[in-house]
Amino acid sequence: MQLTRQTDYSLRVLMYLAVLEEGQLAQLGDIASDHGISRNHLVKVVHRLGQLGYIVTRRGKGGGIRLALAAEEINIGEVVSRLESTLTSIDCSALACKLLPACHLNRLLAQAMQAYVETLAGHTLADLVAQPNTRELLKAIHGVSQ
Amino acid sequence: MQLTRQTDYSLRVLMYLAVLEEGQLAQLGDIASDHGISRNHLVKVVHRLGQLGYIVTRRGKGGGIRLALAAEEINIGEVVSRLESTLTSIDCSALACKLLPACHLNRLLAQAMQAYVETLAGHTLADLVAQPNTRELLKAIHGVSQ
Repeated sequence: MQLTRQTDYSLRVLMYLAVLEEGQLAQLGDIASDHGISRNHLVKVVHRLGQLGYIVTRRGKGGGIRLALAAEEINIGEVVSRLESTLTSIDCSALACKLLPACHLNRLLAQAMQAYVETLAGHTLADLVAQPNTRELLKAIHGVSQ
Repeated sequence: MQLTRQTDYSLRVLMYLAVLEEGQLAQLGDIASDHGISRNHLVKVVHRLGQLGYIVTRRGKGGGIRLALAAEEINIGEVVSRLESTLTSIDCSALACKLLPACHLNRLLAQAMQAYVETLAGHTLADLVAQPNTRELLKAIHGVSQ
């Protein structure tokens, strides 16, 4: 059971953006090369994060992307819930399951998924980069002056 | 984020077997047709469940499969943990991520997955079929005399 690659990359992009200096913008090319993500894939990820209101893009020369909100306002549980189209553990409709009307398996799996999301919801993007070693490592990777 | 099809089918097979009468065996062909699962896929699922000690197979004429343990002894959290090869939310090694030494994302995702499994671990297979309507529906599907 794994998050989609889109969610995985989205979380990495958000962490990347969370340690930028005030007013600084990130370039897609830099994120792609620093994280070993294909640029094409990254374009889709950034588009989706923009649609969801987490990042803003400034186009043209000197343009780039940055967070649309403070890192303290970006809840990780909410990010994952909104990005993952299938947070149901199993797809009961795929087999037209005859058990559905009385099934306690899907209810239990839904409870478990709720526990998963609630754990994430106790943390914001700011928490993920709050530790000095994480912050320093991110800044070193990005070549951001401290 | 979804469980693998193998885990999904395994849980359905275990529920199927949990309502058999004492001494009764189930046929793979019946499970495959009742649940709309391909027989080939089912053979692999049953083989794996046998390896893990959850079911036993009696070969030959009059043979079939049944639970190896009482339904009360089969913990759903354990079943899912043992069947899912990737219970890590994201694969940090895939991108040789430079953040790994200081990453708080993978630790948070691991905590969330633990909450998911712990929720499941509070329930046994017996709980999943304990409600009268589930039990009756399963028996009706299987044509088991009550």
